[in-house]
Amino acid sequence: MKIITTVGEMQEAITAEKKLGKTIGYVPTMGYLHDGHLSLLNHARKENDIVALSIFVNPIQFGPTEDFATYPRDMDRDEKVAREAGVDYIFFPTVQEMYHDEISVQVTVQSRTDVLCGSKRPGHFDGVATVLTKLFNIIKPDKAYFGMKDAQQVAVVDGLIRDFNFAIELVPVPTVREEDGLAKSSRNVYLLEEERKDAKELYQSLLLAQQAITSGEDRPEEIIRMIKEHIGTHTGAEIDYIEIYSYPELKAVKQLHGKILIALAAKFTKARLIDNITMTLS
Amino acid sequence: MKIITTVGEMQEAITAEKKLGKTIGYVPTMGYLHDGHLSLLNHARKENDIVALSIFVNPIQFGPTEDFATYPRDMDRDEKVAREAGVDYIFFPTVQEMYHDEISVQVTVQSRTDVLCGSKRPGHFDGVATVLTKLFNIIKPDKAYFGMKDAQQVAVVDGLIRDFNFAIELVPVPTVREEDGLAKSSRNVYLLEEERKDAKELYQSLLLAQQAITSGEDRPEEIIRMIKEHIGTHTGAEIDYIEIYSYPELKAVKQLHGKILIALAAKFTKARLIDNITMTLS
Repeated sequence: MKIITTVGEMQEAITAEKKLGKTIGYVPTMGYLHDGHLSLLNHARKENDIVALSIFVNPIQFGPTEDFATYPRDMDRDEKVAREAGVDYIFFPTVQEMYHDEISVQVTVQSRTDVLCGSKRPGHFDGVATVLTKLFNIIKPDKAYFGMKDAQQVAVVDGLIRDFNFAIELVPVPTVREEDGLAKSSRNVYLLEEERKDAKELYQSLLLAQQAITSGEDRPEEIIRMIKEHIGTHTGAEIDYIEIYSYPELKAVKQLHGKILIALAAKFTKARLIDNITMTLS
Repeated sequence: MKIITTVGEMQEAITAEKKLGKTIGYVPTMGYLHDGHLSLLNHARKENDIVALSIFVNPIQFGPTEDFATYPRDMDRDEKVAREAGVDYIFFPTVQEMYHDEISVQVTVQSRTDVLCGSKRPGHFDGVATVLTKLFNIIKPDKAYFGMKDAQQVAVVDGLIRDFNFAIELVPVPTVREEDGLAKSSRNVYLLEEERKDAKELYQSLLLAQQAITSGEDRPEEIIRMIKEHIGTHTGAEIDYIEIYSYPELKAVKQLHGKILIALAAKFTKARLIDNITMTLS
């Protein structure tokens, strides 16, 4: 496994691999790797000759009141995790290497961002799309892996790859869950003991919705009501949002059909958790 | 020579050439090819195994009052010119092929655009940078050729390639001139007979400035005064702007040093002409 810190060296290494006919699977991260990332790396390892992982805490996707400076970093541990996962290259640039002094261009995301978490984080997805445009040009992957835990990010990346004509296959990877169904998250440790038990009900409410839809319910407002009631009855969490959209367009639907996303965010005492499911209806 | 109209086929053709180890030289145009384009093609032909030309009148770089609908098009003639210039591929997509129905992302250019012609065409360079991001991903050139006639465009593309980490070498090609020094332009035909004779004085004024700078003059305002006086004395043109900037940053300079751009625009009765020179001072 090689750790590369400059754009030039990374591009050279990738060019050399491509000349040998190798396929590149790519997992972009901000480091502090957890089981979700590991699942992305395992998928990439199975499906490509070469696995590239990037670790870059991207300042331009953090809002002014967000936690860029205190975002957790642990390169020694990440290096060990990556090595065990069979990563071939870690791209680990500095902020200066990625952005120099003047940034003359950036990507602005014009749709798919005004709903869900995106509506509360103006500019966040512009920062994500900008750094991914750079990273895609540096790593030139055949396939790029993103977790469905952040379904909106997957939708934005889907638009980015399509609209900028990147010759990259986007591979959405299912959310990794605890045994009781709770979506894995580094924030789960902030749950109080009682809350940890209740938290599984977020996913339970989504499964309930899925079942109702499979049984013929096609009114989004009715599904949202059911989820709200389930979470209200079984947990003390405060619901931040429950939303249903077409996927990946993230447009409102009056009647459920085609591919849809059901997504929610809920606040416990010290942790705000998100979860979602997608379904394809005939 | 192959004419390709879909993104998928173009990407396949380029991938096949790259597998054979071929280098790709790329000339992006809006068609209606003239001597300036021919010079770009000739440079590309000399320096690469494969020459790709794109012809695409890009709607999103035209302002609402600009001439997208009436922009001149002549594919039959362009095809002939391209064939004679030794072009291997013409990429000639429709607007629908390039933009579909929803555009979810675009490039915004955040510097180098608030001066010269860019200051009068808000959004123009966003449209240019967006289509080039797409075209660079479709054609994947080793080298891309742009004419120095539009020095600001070259500066913007320089920023785009650097900041998005495209592995592309930007090749700026000198302005092609008539025998008397007038920069070639499809707009020169709009000059009245007397104006055509005077028009050479635009370039003469730039050469005069160059000479003064070489002789030690380092005050931009003095150089601008000299150019203004020369054009005022020798032509009936109305000066639109005469500006001097660092290049390619396009930042104001108090004292001339390093690489600089001297650019001007002047209005004749029916034609607005632009010209410029760059110099590197020690």
